[in-house]
Amino acid sequence: LAAISDACRCSSAQGLSLVRNISELPQDNYGRGGLSHITVAGSFMHGMKEVEVWLQTFAPGSHTPIHRHSCEEIFVVLKGSGTLYLASDSHGKYPGTPQEFSIFSNSTFHIPVNDVHQVWNTNEHEDLQVLVIISRPPVKVFIYEDWSMPHAAAKLKYPYYWDEECLQASRKDEL
Amino acid sequence: LAAISDACRCSSAQGLSLVRNISELPQDNYGRGGLSHITVAGSFMHGMKEVEVWLQTFAPGSHTPIHRHSCEEIFVVLKGSGTLYLASDSHGKYPGTPQEFSIFSNSTFHIPVNDVHQVWNTNEHEDLQVLVIISRPPVKVFIYEDWSMPHAAAKLKYPYYWDEECLQASRKDEL
Ligand SMILES: [Zn+2]
Ligand SMILES: [Zn+2]
Repeated sequence: LAAISDACRCSSAQGLSLVRNISELPQDNYGRGGLSHITVAGSFMHGMKEVEVWLQTFAPGSHTPIHRHSCEEIFVVLKGSGTLYLASDSHGKYPGTPQEFSIFSNSTFHIPVNDVHQVWNTNEHEDLQVLVIISRPPVKVFIYEDWSMPHAAAKLKYPYYWDEECLQASRKDEL
Repeated sequence: LAAISDACRCSSAQGLSLVRNISELPQDNYGRGGLSHITVAGSFMHGMKEVEVWLQTFAPGSHTPIHRHSCEEIFVVLKGSGTLYLASDSHGKYPGTPQEFSIFSNSTFHIPVNDVHQVWNTNEHEDLQVLVIISRPPVKVFIYEDWSMPHAAAKLKYPYYWDEECLQASRKDEL
């Protein structure tokens, strides 16, 4: 039964129609507290090969992991505010203390390729909602436990949280 | 003077800061009636190599040209409604009568690579606002005068409307 529902979510009729209502797309926290993630247009779900778009909402105090990836990533902040932490010097052995940037409704920023970063909803009164655009999906993410963890020790998380069940479903289809 | 303002618009301090206020980014119709275009994150303006994001507003009755491109393109409709015209059969000599799809606030769709398409604000009461994501910028667009124009006669528009002045500015920089 779990397998059937996974497969349905990964290639639902909703997911396959050309014009999709975003509010009817699958939404989940994928095991991360305070997160709501929707794959608006994705590699596994919709057959995208070069770009992928997510709609994410972070409850106050919630955040992404500290992480890096070699794809391009653009954020468009739709609602709320928060903080981007960015460690730009990838020449050291570990990220080190990150720079802090305020992010706010109707702002945009992109993450330089391979820079270690983290997005936090540091506004305790409001959700932070962002559209996230990445290139070359599906995303391959290296996760750090803290800012002093060596780059070489960062752990590859692939498939990423929301890609897990779809990758499993597509592998089952192949059996 | 024109050259200076072009160059400024293409690499303004605003354009180069990491977190940018979208409402302070350059906005223009680039000679197309009823259009407001903002390059949120772009190849020429912000050094993106794999993805580009635009914020576009179409006044009632305004529309894109009939066109095709070999990059991926994703639309997220933020406000208003309209119609997507899409000619999916690229095997004929010309696009032919397109299929019509209603698009609406909080909907999303992507254009299959090389399919001929056009987006119209067919709602006479409201602006249509969309976020547009393309892969492999800068975009190379083939424009059709009508749906019965042969694919082979479609005219390459490169650089595209909003890329023109920045491409010129970057060429002047090289002199
Ligand atoms: Zn990231
Ligand atoms: Zn297009």
